[in-house]
Amino acid sequence: MNAAPQPLGRPRGEGRETLEARLLRRLLGSLGDPPIEFLLRWTGERVASAHGASVARVEIADRATLIGLLADPQVRFGDAYGAGRIEVVGDLVELTKVIYLSAAAQGAEGGVAQRVAGWLHRPRRNTLAGSRRNIHRHYDLGNDFYSLWLGESMAYTCAYFPSADAGLDEAQVAKMDHVCRKLRLGPGDRVVEAGCGWGTFALHMAARYGATVRAYNISKEQIKFARARASELGLGDRVEFVEDDYRNITGDYDVFVSIGMLEHVGTENYEELGRIARRSIGATGRGLIHSIGRNRPAALHPWIERRIFPGAYPPSIGQMMQIFEPSDLSVLDVENIRLHYALTLRHWLRRYEDAVGTVREMFDETLVRTWRLYLAGSIAAFETGVLQLFQVLFTAEQNNDIPLTRAHVYAAEAVDAQR
Amino acid sequence: MNAAPQPLGRPRGEGRETLEARLLRRLLGSLGDPPIEFLLRWTGERVASAHGASVARVEIADRATLIGLLADPQVRFGDAYGAGRIEVVGDLVELTKVIYLSAAAQGAEGGVAQRVAGWLHRPRRNTLAGSRRNIHRHYDLGNDFYSLWLGESMAYTCAYFPSADAGLDEAQVAKMDHVCRKLRLGPGDRVVEAGCGWGTFALHMAARYGATVRAYNISKEQIKFARARASELGLGDRVEFVEDDYRNITGDYDVFVSIGMLEHVGTENYEELGRIARRSIGATGRGLIHSIGRNRPAALHPWIERRIFPGAYPPSIGQMMQIFEPSDLSVLDVENIRLHYALTLRHWLRRYEDAVGTVREMFDETLVRTWRLYLAGSIAAFETGVLQLFQVLFTAEQNNDIPLTRAHVYAAEAVDAQR
Repeated sequence: MNAAPQPLGRPRGEGRETLEARLLRRLLGSLGDPPIEFLLRWTGERVASAHGASVARVEIADRATLIGLLADPQVRFGDAYGAGRIEVVGDLVELTKVIYLSAAAQGAEGGVAQRVAGWLHRPRRNTLAGSRRNIHRHYDLGNDFYSLWLGESMAYTCAYFPSADAGLDEAQVAKMDHVCRKLRLGPGDRVVEAGCGWGTFALHMAARYGATVRAYNISKEQIKFARARASELGLGDRVEFVEDDYRNITGDYDVFVSIGMLEHVGTENYEELGRIARRSIGATGRGLIHSIGRNRPAALHPWIERRIFPGAYPPSIGQMMQIFEPSDLSVLDVENIRLHYALTLRHWLRRYEDAVGTVREMFDETLVRTWRLYLAGSIAAFETGVLQLFQVLFTAEQNNDIPLTRAHVYAAEAVDAQR
Repeated sequence: MNAAPQPLGRPRGEGRETLEARLLRRLLGSLGDPPIEFLLRWTGERVASAHGASVARVEIADRATLIGLLADPQVRFGDAYGAGRIEVVGDLVELTKVIYLSAAAQGAEGGVAQRVAGWLHRPRRNTLAGSRRNIHRHYDLGNDFYSLWLGESMAYTCAYFPSADAGLDEAQVAKMDHVCRKLRLGPGDRVVEAGCGWGTFALHMAARYGATVRAYNISKEQIKFARARASELGLGDRVEFVEDDYRNITGDYDVFVSIGMLEHVGTENYEELGRIARRSIGATGRGLIHSIGRNRPAALHPWIERRIFPGAYPPSIGQMMQIFEPSDLSVLDVENIRLHYALTLRHWLRRYEDAVGTVREMFDETLVRTWRLYLAGSIAAFETGVLQLFQVLFTAEQNNDIPLTRAHVYAAEAVDAQR
């Protein structure tokens, strides 16, 4: 990619490109020459990939923004987009997809440099206090904000679509049932949930499966919301919401479950998480961890980690094994449902855009744009295979009370589908 | 376990124990004091666990055998059993189970020592020539030997039991169909199989699914058998058996599949295996690897590795990821079906005992006893969670032509079950 590709568009009214345009062309090359067009608003110049028609046009407002972009494209793109110094004309999802795909195609050759870059960027540590800070920053934006676009179920994790055209709320319920079936949850089961969001799943397990649930979360806003919901539903005696860190879980349970918390745990704490899970379920219980993941170790996109999810890290399956291997736990089933997260995010983005006027009133235009880019970029990441979604079912090593096949999960889902 | 437990049986005709009995008692303690009784035939002494009733009695023929056992119990027990210097009165499976369970219970405390012991024992390297030697030693014992107890399907890998009372042949067919369904195998699919045994699965894919199969194996005896079968079935034009190493696989395929070969590959060759799989299936194909595994890295039982499976190593899921992570492959599904291998082995052991007279005529008593212990010990390993059986389904990272759910696998199996 050293040879500069021929521009599709020519500098307006000039025979020669400016230095800025030439530097931007070099940046495009270093990204693997994705099919994008840039417009430098202050010179009127256009810089485009030589490879096929552009999927979108990126308009850069001024020289300072361009210089930032050249210095640190991964972080500055998102920041400038949020601040309105970069505008995208065209489909934001398609734009981020072609960037991911170009980077991946380059990875085949430039893999080492990519890996080094990944390791240099380390997420913020998730100590007890650090976790509280990190979680507060993201989840305490306010329940009202999230309720605008998460849908009825208030679940901020990947749904499960029995078919691609299922609705979001239906798919969130199907996800909860899918997990409960894998866990063979039944009446009287004692469940501990590590990281419970707004309590939706805890309440579902109690209401639909007759389980008794103790659910942990360190987000004050979410716990408040969850407790109110439990009272409304008359489930206060069967579901206890504890405002505390998963590391402080005590007690004996039949089931340990954690949906969408592992991303915030940090690999340095995986072994401890495994000990807690093993201690919780003893020799005969069942466990399930649902998490965003990777096909190989790599840091989260640095802009997402800095601006959206401080401290977050999506592990590879190999890294996740550090939870189970040291703690006498046996993995029974790993399912990768990454395309379900792309579907989920497309629902969220659609609802988010529908509610964007309200979001603007609640916050400001920067937040509106930042979250739009985050949701669109996440769709792109799941659709291009940059991110995965793993559900890992496990039990103690010597527990033979495990179903021979997984047919029971799908038999129940087939009955649901016929309703 | 330093305090010597009280014996259930007393030395016959003597007030004091011999030195041999005391040393044996110490060995029993170091094994975690499993509920076994030993009889020293030359002194008449009995040494038994203090913990509950013995599940079996181990009779040691002479002082030399005992001394060997004290020096290297893991390897010498099997050798002495094979040679008839150790006799087991009672259930051989139960005996090996309590030994595994005691060791596991000790592992919680003595974990480091166990791990060190595991690492010191390294399997024989699987270079191209080494693999040929290792495979020849095991699989070329003769097709007649294996056909005595493997059943009609001639499949020397874990079967899949739709229900625990299914027959062996039925379960072997169900295993093949289970794998084909995971791979969504259909007419015209080009399949490469790495390690094809006696060709049963290759022929099944061609006959039942309309696939075209190229199947690799380095066992001359097995390839000869497989080719004869292909001719008999009139499938010679659709299934090609290649007597060559998986490392020499070339060509483009829709499917890469390997059932029960990974155990012989050696972790040092995993990355290369991944490259071969990725190259074979390209951007849109599917792959499945079926292998014995572990919950955490540990060598195979040294007696099995030395006497039965030279060069074999069952990997943990984390270790298996070294196949996929470096090669742009994405894991879609991991299923652990270890209890199916216990069921499979129970069928094999039963058939083996039925045919034991023929085995004795073909070989000698040592082989009869060695294989009996190997089959019984393997049942114990799968039933106690010492060994696992993983099926890993994968595809290229960016391939989105993947089913949303796994329901299609179980819908087809439900139809089968109703037949």
